Amino acid sequence: MSAPRRTVEPHRAEADPVVSLLTDFGERDGFVGVIRAVILGICPRARLVDLTHEVRPQDVVGGALVLENAVEYFPPGTVHLAVVDPGVGGARRPIVIETERFLLVGPDNGLLSLAAERSPRRRVVHLDRSSWFRESGSRTFHGRDVFAPVAGHLAAGTPAAELGSEIEEYEHVVLPVPRSIDGAVEGQVIHVDRFGNLISNLRQEDLAAFRDSELSVSIAGVRIRGIVTHYAAVREGGTLALWNSWGRLEIAVRNGSAARHLRAHPGDRVEVRRASGS
Amino acid sequence: MSAPRRTVEPHRAEADPVVSLLTDFGERDGFVGVIRAVILGICPRARLVDLTHEVRPQDVVGGALVLENAVEYFPPGTVHLAVVDPGVGGARRPIVIETERFLLVGPDNGLLSLAAERSPRRRVVHLDRSSWFRESGSRTFHGRDVFAPVAGHLAAGTPAAELGSEIEEYEHVVLPVPRSIDGAVEGQVIHVDRFGNLISNLRQEDLAAFRDSELSVSIAGVRIRGIVTHYAAVREGGTLALWNSWGRLEIAVRNGSAARHLRAHPGDRVEVRRASGS
Amino acid sequence: MSAPRRTVEPHRAEADPVVSLLTDFGERDGFVGVIRAVILGICPRARLVDLTHEVRPQDVVGGALVLENAVEYFPPGTVHLAVVDPGVGGARRPIVIETERFLLVGPDNGLLSLAAERSPRRRVVHLDRSSWFRESGSRTFHGRDVFAPVAGHLAAGTPAAELGSEIEEYEHVVLPVPRSIDGAVEGQVIHVDRFGNLISNLRQEDLAAFRDSELSVSIAGVRIRGIVTHYAAVREGGTLALWNSWGRLEIAVRNGSAARHLRAHPGDRVEVRRASGS
Repeated sequence: MSAPRRTVEPHRAEADPVVSLLTDFGERDGFVGVIRAVILGICPRARLVDLTHEVRPQDVVGGALVLENAVEYFPPGTVHLAVVDPGVGGARRPIVIETERFLLVGPDNGLLSLAAERSPRRRVVHLDRSSWFRESGSRTFHGRDVFAPVAGHLAAGTPAAELGSEIEEYEHVVLPVPRSIDGAVEGQVIHVDRFGNLISNLRQEDLAAFRDSELSVSIAGVRIRGIVTHYAAVREGGTLALWNSWGRLEIAVRNGSAARHLRAHPGDRVEVRRASGS
Repeated sequence: MSAPRRTVEPHRAEADPVVSLLTDFGERDGFVGVIRAVILGICPRARLVDLTHEVRPQDVVGGALVLENAVEYFPPGTVHLAVVDPGVGGARRPIVIETERFLLVGPDNGLLSLAAERSPRRRVVHLDRSSWFRESGSRTFHGRDVFAPVAGHLAAGTPAAELGSEIEEYEHVVLPVPRSIDGAVEGQVIHVDRFGNLISNLRQEDLAAFRDSELSVSIAGVRIRGIVTHYAAVREGGTLALWNSWGRLEIAVRNGSAARHLRAHPGDRVEVRRASGS
Repeated sequence: MSAPRRTVEPHRAEADPVVSLLTDFGERDGFVGVIRAVILGICPRARLVDLTHEVRPQDVVGGALVLENAVEYFPPGTVHLAVVDPGVGGARRPIVIETERFLLVGPDNGLLSLAAERSPRRRVVHLDRSSWFRESGSRTFHGRDVFAPVAGHLAAGTPAAELGSEIEEYEHVVLPVPRSIDGAVEGQVIHVDRFGNLISNLRQEDLAAFRDSELSVSIAGVRIRGIVTHYAAVREGGTLALWNSWGRLEIAVRNGSAARHLRAHPGDRVEVRRASGS
């Protein structure tokens, strides 16, 4: 049996380009497989990385949140293809947003807008040159016919500026803004993850007036005292609040589902105040 | 921060071979992961592309439809591994179908037959030489022990003809054929996609006698007038008919599920006739 | 149309390193996508192979079983990253287990222990050198901040011994042991797969005293006579027992779900004895 040890990665002038994929297509109908095929046909060296294909159908804000919290972890120069596109084939524009660190490709419906804030903008391009698209009699699958070819060409080195006309504005999604009321800060649940953890719109800077230990978090009639650093800091089944891996205040149940336990949903109110008696 | 711009893809004498994967295995038990491992063990350069692993268990026709509508988008020379195989280990034969554009590997139960029509046939091979298989005490997982090794060898360059005996016939799945009755054309729902869109067996050539604008489509007691080009052509929640990305007549609800809204299922009748009054 | 035939795989001094991924993260929140990104950022040549991300949340034993039955199919030198980690951020240690054939990276909670038995051990390393981790203000996502960087460095050739302190012991999961009672062997269901097949803890060596043809298998009040070699050996809808692809005794229903048909679950008793009258 040969040893699992390998020599150190040899220096390569240039690594294979990375293309990430985010859609609401699911996997079962082969739609994503076809997108992967089109990209590889144009850029055979592309490394395809699935971000998720389980965005809820037509949930532009949900997709924008996942993309926002992923882009910083990818190598510089990554092309991020994102398609949650209820307006496909209609008036909404296909666009590329080029930043200093990455390129975003998708519909101009806000899906790309949160991620775009994570790196200084270079240019926004309206994909209005159909010679870069795949010819198709259909106007229902721009993921295959418009966005995949464009992502392939970007990965292969075509400058974004060649793919269409530069524009100034694009659509933004707007997350609810935390409010300060009577010494409390009020936010809301913006995402429920696979484990049933409740992710709020609150960030550390929103609660700068408090120390973690003296906080009291209320949600769905339940009050949680203090903020812990990890799930196992409370007993099995206990409810807790922590700063999660997205940098947001999260309400969780250890080894359980806070969403089910508290019957909580996106949009539910999260109130933070100084614990009485502290 | 370095620029995301890359140089143009350097010319390579030969791109890495692409192997697509379609199964009804789901992801949760690791069965597909093992198939991927076996292929990479034989052909380390293979680019593995998942088409879907969410075919309904044992749904050979459903798998055949997804494969049929994907093969044309892959680079020439792609090896398509497909396993929906209720007869595994029994009398059905393992086969390779070699066409001018791609290679299909899987059980001879009709799964490969719709895709095979998409490119002229070169040969069909019965995989009857077990020296190409992985040795195993089990007859229940040909995906791992038969089809993955064969796909790996094909990707690595072994000619199909070396893998078994040439045969003339293979099994076909038969889709329902549209019928003309009293000036109407009658088809049926053959697939419900992730969004709840109802895909029928009707193609444009089946309705050549009509113009799109003057058509009336009936399904589940609902009548839809005219065919639109994209989902956003109707109001939110509206029911519509269009030619979809597979080239089939599809009934959809904008930003909703037609399957749920109309309580429709595969096999349900779709009737198209000239709209009265047009 | 060019021929799908390719030349034989050219000899390469060294194939790209393979990294397998197993988690209970699901795909929908992008957590796994971020792990993939971090690995590729450190080792751009890595071939990422998903084993599964659908382990039931916090089901360490379920993840350990899938990993155990996959490692032997991967190329030598594969790095297996596994994260089912209810104790993340707390007292449980992050570890690497290096064997002669593969490397295992994950939490020290038993998840890696069944797979580790599949190849002779070289060393176990406690990942106690945070300079190898990704800096993060969060203690909730070691998949991204600890295990992905370590897997990337291992894939790029860093010896495991450099990543932390060598240790002697690590946590093990314990599967239920079959018992012999009154001439029967009693086991239990340890896994239900995607098809509803019931996988027991019984291996061929546990039943060495019997011949397959003379066995009688009882589960959930149903008695099955004999062991068959493949699903299609019985009539449609028939219940059967076979040695499955994991080498375990499995109870199945042909083209159906034994779990649903028999209302059986993990932990249910499986009793094997000599068939009366044989």
